[in-house]
Amino acid sequence: MGNTVKRLAILGSTGSIGQQTLDVVRALPHRFQVIGLAGGKNLELLTRQIAEFKPHFVYYQNNSTRPDNAEYELLSLEDIACHPQVDMLVIATSGKAGLAPTLAAVKAGKNVALANKESLVMAGEIITREAKLSGAQILPIDSEHSAIWQCLRGETQPAAEFILTASGGPFRHYTPAQLDTVTARAALKHPTWQMGGKVTIDSATLMNKGLEVIEAHWLFDIPIDNIRIIIHPQSIIHSMVEFTDGSTKAQLSYPDMRLPIQYALTYPERLPNERLPGLDWSNITGLTFEPPDLAAFPCLKLAIEAGKNGGTYPAVLCGADELAVELFLSQRIRFTDIARLIEQVLTEHKSTAHPTLEEIMAADNWAREKVRQILAGG
Amino acid sequence: MGNTVKRLAILGSTGSIGQQTLDVVRALPHRFQVIGLAGGKNLELLTRQIAEFKPHFVYYQNNSTRPDNAEYELLSLEDIACHPQVDMLVIATSGKAGLAPTLAAVKAGKNVALANKESLVMAGEIITREAKLSGAQILPIDSEHSAIWQCLRGETQPAAEFILTASGGPFRHYTPAQLDTVTARAALKHPTWQMGGKVTIDSATLMNKGLEVIEAHWLFDIPIDNIRIIIHPQSIIHSMVEFTDGSTKAQLSYPDMRLPIQYALTYPERLPNERLPGLDWSNITGLTFEPPDLAAFPCLKLAIEAGKNGGTYPAVLCGADELAVELFLSQRIRFTDIARLIEQVLTEHKSTAHPTLEEIMAADNWAREKVRQILAGG
Repeated sequence: MGNTVKRLAILGSTGSIGQQTLDVVRALPHRFQVIGLAGGKNLELLTRQIAEFKPHFVYYQNNSTRPDNAEYELLSLEDIACHPQVDMLVIATSGKAGLAPTLAAVKAGKNVALANKESLVMAGEIITREAKLSGAQILPIDSEHSAIWQCLRGETQPAAEFILTASGGPFRHYTPAQLDTVTARAALKHPTWQMGGKVTIDSATLMNKGLEVIEAHWLFDIPIDNIRIIIHPQSIIHSMVEFTDGSTKAQLSYPDMRLPIQYALTYPERLPNERLPGLDWSNITGLTFEPPDLAAFPCLKLAIEAGKNGGTYPAVLCGADELAVELFLSQRIRFTDIARLIEQVLTEHKSTAHPTLEEIMAADNWAREKVRQILAGG
Repeated sequence: MGNTVKRLAILGSTGSIGQQTLDVVRALPHRFQVIGLAGGKNLELLTRQIAEFKPHFVYYQNNSTRPDNAEYELLSLEDIACHPQVDMLVIATSGKAGLAPTLAAVKAGKNVALANKESLVMAGEIITREAKLSGAQILPIDSEHSAIWQCLRGETQPAAEFILTASGGPFRHYTPAQLDTVTARAALKHPTWQMGGKVTIDSATLMNKGLEVIEAHWLFDIPIDNIRIIIHPQSIIHSMVEFTDGSTKAQLSYPDMRLPIQYALTYPERLPNERLPGLDWSNITGLTFEPPDLAAFPCLKLAIEAGKNGGTYPAVLCGADELAVELFLSQRIRFTDIARLIEQVLTEHKSTAHPTLEEIMAADNWAREKVRQILAGG
C-alpha cells in the first residue's frame, strides 16, 4: 500500500457531501491534500474552508470580488476539473451544475468521485463512453452505489440483479390523500440520513431511488430491468447484489455518508477512521423489508420508465424534477404536484435518441419551461 | 472462463454433504467428472452412486467384498486423496475420519473443498502450514465460511472482525432446566438446515458454532478474539465481515448447502443452477438478531476457550464431543451432559503445544477414554 498523498479538488465543498468530504480529509490528513475548492452561495463557509485547507485553486459561484486575501488562483469549474495537478475530483454539487465539470474531468482522464446523480442520469451514455476512451474511473459516492461497488469487488462475472434499498423516506405508509397535504418542513425531515434539501425531497418522493436506478445502470452496465427496489427503513443494508449462482452479497453500515466518501477516496485501500464505527450488533435486533408503494410514490416509476426509454427522457425528468422540488420548497405547489408535473412534462416530450450534450441541456431547459407553462396555464 | 472438466473425488459421498455435492455435479454435468467415491456404512447408496457416476477409484468403509461388478480400483482414503488424476478433493466425512486424508491431499498440493470441521479444528496449525508449503488451496464448504470467503473476495487488507451467524438451533430460548429433558428426536429436528446427525446435535448445543470459530481462525488467519457470534434464526445471512473502515459485508441466500458446495467447486466462477434460486425479497419481511445465551449453551464458550488455548485442547474438545454426541443419540446421557462431560475432560487435560499429528490423535483418544471413565465412575 502506497502512502502517497492524493491531491483533491472538491466541487460543491460547501454542500452536505462537500463538508463531509472535508471531514474525511481531516480524519486522514496524511493521505490527502485539498488543492481545489469550489463552493456555492455560502461564501462565509467557503472562506473558512479556504483558510483551513489552503487550496491552490478556487471557484466562487459569484466570482466578482474575492472575500479574502488568501493566495489562490480563481478558476472555472471546468478548469479546476481538468487541472494537471488534480489527482482526483470530487463532484459534490447538486443538480445539473455537476454535468459539465464531470464530463470535462472524465475527458481529461481524471478519476472522479461522483456524488452528483444528475450527471450520469442525464448524460450517462456520453460520460461512460468518454471514461472508457480516456481511462478515467468513476467512483460512486452515493451509499447505494458504493454498496454495490463493494459487493462487486473481486467478482469476475456480471451480476444477476441489483437490489437497491430505500429508507422509504418520511412519508412511508402515507396514503395519496395524506401526501396531498404534507409540508416542505415535514418533507425535509429524513428519518435516517442527513442530506441536502434537493436530495431529501427526492427521497421523500422516491424520485431519488429512481435516479439511482438509472445511475446504477450506467455505472455498472446492468439493464434497468435487473435492478429491483426494496424499502428497508433502518438504512443499515445500503444495497445488495445477487449473483448468477443464487448468492447475494450486501453492504452494511450506519447511515453516514462519510463511509462511502472515504471508500471512494481511498479505494482500493480501506482505512480505519475513528469517526466511522462498525455496526454494534448488540443494538441491532431486526432489519425489515417491504415493497415500495408505486401508487403513492409515482416518481419512482416515472424515473424507471424514463431510464428505460433513454434518449432525452432522463434529462427531462431531471429538469422537471429540479424545478418542481424548488417550487415545492418555496410552497408554490403541493407535494403530490411534483410527480403530476413531471409526468405531464414527460408525456409531452419528444425524445432524441443518443443525444449530444447540447441536446441534453436543451431538453432540460425545455422541461423547466414546460413546468412553468403548465403552472401558468393551470 | 475455461470450460475444462474438473475431476473430483468425494470422500463421504453417502453423507448429507456428499449427496448434495453429487446433486451439484448432476446440475453441472459438463463441468465435473466424479472419478473417486468413498462411502461410509450405507453400502446400498454407494453402490447406486458408483453405477451412476462410474468412478475410477472407490473406498468402502468395510472393504472386504465388492458389492457390484463395476470396474473401479479399490483404494484407501489417503490414496484417493493424493491420486494424480484427482483435480479437487471434496472432504465430506464427519468427525476425525477426515483428518488423515485432508492432510494427505494438502501435502500432495491438491485443492481441497472442505466440509469436515474437525480437520482444521484439531490440526489447523499443521494443515495450514502444509498447504502453504505445497500451494494447496483449502476451499471452505461450510455455509458460514463460504459466506466469509465470498465477503473477503477481492479485498486486499485483513478484516477487522468476522460475525458468524447461528440459527440458534431447535432449543433457542430454552432454559437450562428445559434443556435437561430434551430428547435426541427433538434435537435432530433443526429449524432451518437439513444436515447429518452429528452436526445437527452440535448445532443444538452450539458446539458447531464454536468449532466454526476455530475453523475460521485457521482458514482466514484471524485471531479468535476478532470473531463474534450472533443468533440469526432465519439463516438467510450466513455470516459477515467487518472491515477496518467500519463497512460490513454479508452473504445471503436460502439455507441450502448446495450453494456453498457449488461455490467451492466452481470457484472463481459462479454458475447458474436452477435448483438454487435467488432470494425472493417479496417474501422476506424481516431478519432478526440476538446475542447467544452462553449460560444455557456452554459448549460455545468451551470451544472458543479450547481454540484460544490451542495445543491439543481442540483435539480433546472434538474427541469428547464426538463420543458425547454418540452417547446422547443412543440415549445413554442427557443433552446437558454433553457440555458437562466435555468441560470436565478439558479441565483434566494437560495440553501439548504445537502438537504433531500423532499427539493430536492421542489427545483425541485420551478424551474419549476420559469420557468413558467419567461415566463409569459417575
